[in-house]
Amino acid sequence: MRPDPALLSLNTATVRAQWKLDRIIAGCERHGIRGIAPWRDQIAELGLKETKRRIRDAGLIVTGLCRGGFFTPRGRRGLAAAIAENRRAIEEAAELSAQCLILVVGGLTDGSRNLADARALVEEGIAAILEDARRAAVPLAIEPLHPMYAADRACINTVAQANALCDRLGEGLGIAVDVYHVWWDPELADAIAATDSRRLLGFHICDWLSPTTDLLNDRGMMGDGVIDIRRIRGMMEAAGYRGFHEVEIFSTNKWWNHDPDEVLRVCKARHAELC
Amino acid sequence: MRPDPALLSLNTATVRAQWKLDRIIAGCERHGIRGIAPWRDQIAELGLKETKRRIRDAGLIVTGLCRGGFFTPRGRRGLAAAIAENRRAIEEAAELSAQCLILVVGGLTDGSRNLADARALVEEGIAAILEDARRAAVPLAIEPLHPMYAADRACINTVAQANALCDRLGEGLGIAVDVYHVWWDPELADAIAATDSRRLLGFHICDWLSPTTDLLNDRGMMGDGVIDIRRIRGMMEAAGYRGFHEVEIFSTNKWWNHDPDEVLRVCKARHAELC
Repeated sequence: MRPDPALLSLNTATVRAQWKLDRIIAGCERHGIRGIAPWRDQIAELGLKETKRRIRDAGLIVTGLCRGGFFTPRGRRGLAAAIAENRRAIEEAAELSAQCLILVVGGLTDGSRNLADARALVEEGIAAILEDARRAAVPLAIEPLHPMYAADRACINTVAQANALCDRLGEGLGIAVDVYHVWWDPELADAIAATDSRRLLGFHICDWLSPTTDLLNDRGMMGDGVIDIRRIRGMMEAAGYRGFHEVEIFSTNKWWNHDPDEVLRVCKARHAELC
Repeated sequence: MRPDPALLSLNTATVRAQWKLDRIIAGCERHGIRGIAPWRDQIAELGLKETKRRIRDAGLIVTGLCRGGFFTPRGRRGLAAAIAENRRAIEEAAELSAQCLILVVGGLTDGSRNLADARALVEEGIAAILEDARRAAVPLAIEPLHPMYAADRACINTVAQANALCDRLGEGLGIAVDVYHVWWDPELADAIAATDSRRLLGFHICDWLSPTTDLLNDRGMMGDGVIDIRRIRGMMEAAGYRGFHEVEIFSTNKWWNHDPDEVLRVCKARHAELC
């Protein structure tokens, strides 16, 4: 397993505090970063056509669109609206030729303590949009989120759990593995090994800082924390994954305050050194 | 499943900011709380003999001693010292006739990213003290901690993982199930059902606040969060657990600032209503 700078992709959240999307696209081109994963709110601001044009002109590959999902917050009465929103996200992903649409599936329904209900609603929601995704040739990537987000962001919390859902729903659905969310899992190696390579739709990198001071926005730059990223990359490649390494760092107190060109330089250097 | 106030036990951390151990013991007696789970630093301050005398005079049962474990922080070179410290904890637990010694096993070794090594070291440490625990008739209770503590507190993070370790090491070792740490686990029901009732050594309660603002000290009072505590109690009882319900709340911003008598009253009321 050798470092491969060509595999680096930038999730635009990493420098979203400093740059709007047009500048992020230009930054990727300037720094020789070949992949980009933009967020829908940034695309809406720049305009979908303009985003597509700039990404194409910069020669970037869209490794994922962030994001679909959130089927659960308003429960069954909100499901139709969530499905409609996810269909719009699929259209945008198709327009940008995104390699996948990332699904952050949603946590508990507001006011509910029933995780089983939330998980069933997620399955129902994904099932409802899966045919649209297949027709649009946009694979849906379930991103299992760290268990500390089970209440408010995603009730799918392990690779094994995502895999079981993929088994039930079939083709067109896969998994994005983010080291931040799964590094702790004692079953991780087995779960990735058990995953069909066609289901491995994304590999996201950053680091877990110890101590972590904020549940949301205290993610670390690769190498500043405790995750053995290369080992997890090894699991992915052993299972057949050949895609990009998408760096995604939410960092209120550190990286969002840095010169974004410097952030991209550090991302590249750490990726080459450690991932 | 009916509410049973006689099953309430107080982990002394719940009011440690307001009261020293002697006052906590008196508080339990005054409020008719029959179980107590003291911490070793508090016992050291009051004195082991004096603690024993006061707990006996108050008619309390020690549902667990907090805590042993932490086999990993200094790695192999710290293991002998950790084992020695755990042997002292076993002696204290025996002296207090504690129903178990809680093990918070430790996270990654300082400076290491190797979770597998840490987990192996935990197993080695527990194996080294297990015969002492058997001789002292003090069951060792592995407490699987929430995955957000994998780096710095415990690299045993699910009931299934703890169970596998118990399978390997045998009699005298079991599990303390804390709803805060395990509520999110999609395998929880299966994992508890697969646990021999003799291994179920403790059931700890509090609540997961949504949002949670601090990784350590923002635990909620039962009913203030999203955990379906009674459902997890049902899993425990279906598996044969008949022990106490130990309330343990770390709460810098709320309960540690309240009148501790009021805290105990609320614990009792919420336990009767929701657990």
